[in-house]
Amino acid sequence: MAGSKANVTIVDGGPRDGLSAVSGQVSTADKIRLINGLAESGITKIDCVAFTHPRLIPKNSDAEEVVAKLEKTPDVTYVGLVPSEIGCRRAVLTDIDEVITLVAASEVFNRAALGLGIKETLNKVLPTIFEAASEGGKSIRAYVLAAFGCPYSGTVRSDEVVELVSRLCFMGANEISLLDSTGMADPKQVKEMLAELFGLNLDVDLAVHFHDTRGTGLVNCVAAYEAGVRIFDTAIGGLSGTPFGAPELDMGFWNIPTEDLVHLFEQMGVSTGVDLGLLLECVNLAEDLAGRSLPGHILRIGPKSKLAKVPERLRLK
Amino acid sequence: MAGSKANVTIVDGGPRDGLSAVSGQVSTADKIRLINGLAESGITKIDCVAFTHPRLIPKNSDAEEVVAKLEKTPDVTYVGLVPSEIGCRRAVLTDIDEVITLVAASEVFNRAALGLGIKETLNKVLPTIFEAASEGGKSIRAYVLAAFGCPYSGTVRSDEVVELVSRLCFMGANEISLLDSTGMADPKQVKEMLAELFGLNLDVDLAVHFHDTRGTGLVNCVAAYEAGVRIFDTAIGGLSGTPFGAPELDMGFWNIPTEDLVHLFEQMGVSTGVDLGLLLECVNLAEDLAGRSLPGHILRIGPKSKLAKVPERLRLK
Repeated sequence: MAGSKANVTIVDGGPRDGLSAVSGQVSTADKIRLINGLAESGITKIDCVAFTHPRLIPKNSDAEEVVAKLEKTPDVTYVGLVPSEIGCRRAVLTDIDEVITLVAASEVFNRAALGLGIKETLNKVLPTIFEAASEGGKSIRAYVLAAFGCPYSGTVRSDEVVELVSRLCFMGANEISLLDSTGMADPKQVKEMLAELFGLNLDVDLAVHFHDTRGTGLVNCVAAYEAGVRIFDTAIGGLSGTPFGAPELDMGFWNIPTEDLVHLFEQMGVSTGVDLGLLLECVNLAEDLAGRSLPGHILRIGPKSKLAKVPERLRLK
Repeated sequence: MAGSKANVTIVDGGPRDGLSAVSGQVSTADKIRLINGLAESGITKIDCVAFTHPRLIPKNSDAEEVVAKLEKTPDVTYVGLVPSEIGCRRAVLTDIDEVITLVAASEVFNRAALGLGIKETLNKVLPTIFEAASEGGKSIRAYVLAAFGCPYSGTVRSDEVVELVSRLCFMGANEISLLDSTGMADPKQVKEMLAELFGLNLDVDLAVHFHDTRGTGLVNCVAAYEAGVRIFDTAIGGLSGTPFGAPELDMGFWNIPTEDLVHLFEQMGVSTGVDLGLLLECVNLAEDLAGRSLPGHILRIGPKSKLAKVPERLRLK
């Protein structure tokens, strides 16, 4: 039980969010290999599948099969995205533990990502999903997209994020993850927003999901950690999808490489419960499935503890 | 005078440290274009040239010519590396403002980088350089290599770094830059070491020079800023040299891209005095000179303030 003594929870979105970026079809067996590998390495929450419409996104049509066939580990929470009530009703029939729902902090980003406005999402879509999940005994992870800035409209007001988070909490979300969808967050903003949110003492777990678009993924994770967050969304190797069919935003929405954050946290004395060696085997698998090298550093450079052999010329005589 | 209201000093090492990595010969005129461009963008300290032996490193043999022909801006400190007394005696005959000297915090790294031991460096080499610089009226910037860890021997004891920094200060260094030569630092370690050093109230300016080898350049800069450091070494585009002819360490010693740090600091309300638009023109030039794309994010992604046009389908009716 690698995760039992961890100070933080790392939520790996590689199998769902990440593999969605792979151009070819990834087989059901390979998806399951990646999920099982992550669980074995000590990752305790895995974003595995999406219950999207099978004709709209054929790649995800094996969601039920993936969940049915993966080897569930007791300490691991297996998560699936549900875009709609229908998706959620499919999810509750499976062994998935938790469902992901989406809403954005910016009106135009909500339209880009979900095809409708925030009000409609909050008043019509989410209540049906929350009800279906609750009836099915699934916990709910709510994503707040563009929580730190919108690539179309710019600044997002923190009071609007606070209101949205409060509302999702009152609706019954068990965990809320703040997404920096296009890498616009900075550590000062992160600390200020989280101080405001923690100050409300909401009955909900807060997570962060930063993107490395502008190279600031790790710096924002450390800021969030210092602000009190203990749940961090990443993806193995930095594997990432493009955002929701919005081609004007296709600018490298890299997730934070799981292994880079694990390595950094362990260096800082923050226990992740993850075995880095086993995790790096998953990065290798993710690169194989993606058919290209991924942006994570630790696979190529090695951990800090991996020392170079001292060449003869440098030996002390 | 872009730099006059800045909260921090960014020291760009692209022209010297960075261009040393370029495989072909960069013309004197191009080196000068890059240096002048950086000064124009508001960078107030530039690591320009190396007074190394012209036969050992022919690329650097135009150091005097570069310094003679660049357009000096009053607010800018122009810096040159001096590996030896002879190099320093050459440097003092030029218009360079400051010289860089080197010593490592790890014995084996000192041997790898400088070809001799720490004691010899401290007792024989540096005193002659410091004397020549002082006689020539040049200020001294001392680099402490491998200050946060050694890729050969692992952990570097912070008390040994403290002793080295104190000694360099008493020898007459005006500024001391702590190098994370192979990207082994983490924010906790950075804060602890800097707290110890600032606690000594040494009469010297402290700078940090992190490498992005493991993706932690920005996170360590923010930690150092929070610890009180106001001088940060970077290189335009992330342009970087390999370490001192030690092929066993050739694993991507990327400098922190100047533009990424400038963008991040400005987002946090820390004024750099740098015009990002003019700086990005220098990144373009650096990529042209390097003949390849560099790892900085902001050139490709654009600053946070650059918004996407809202497509027709997302407009509010």
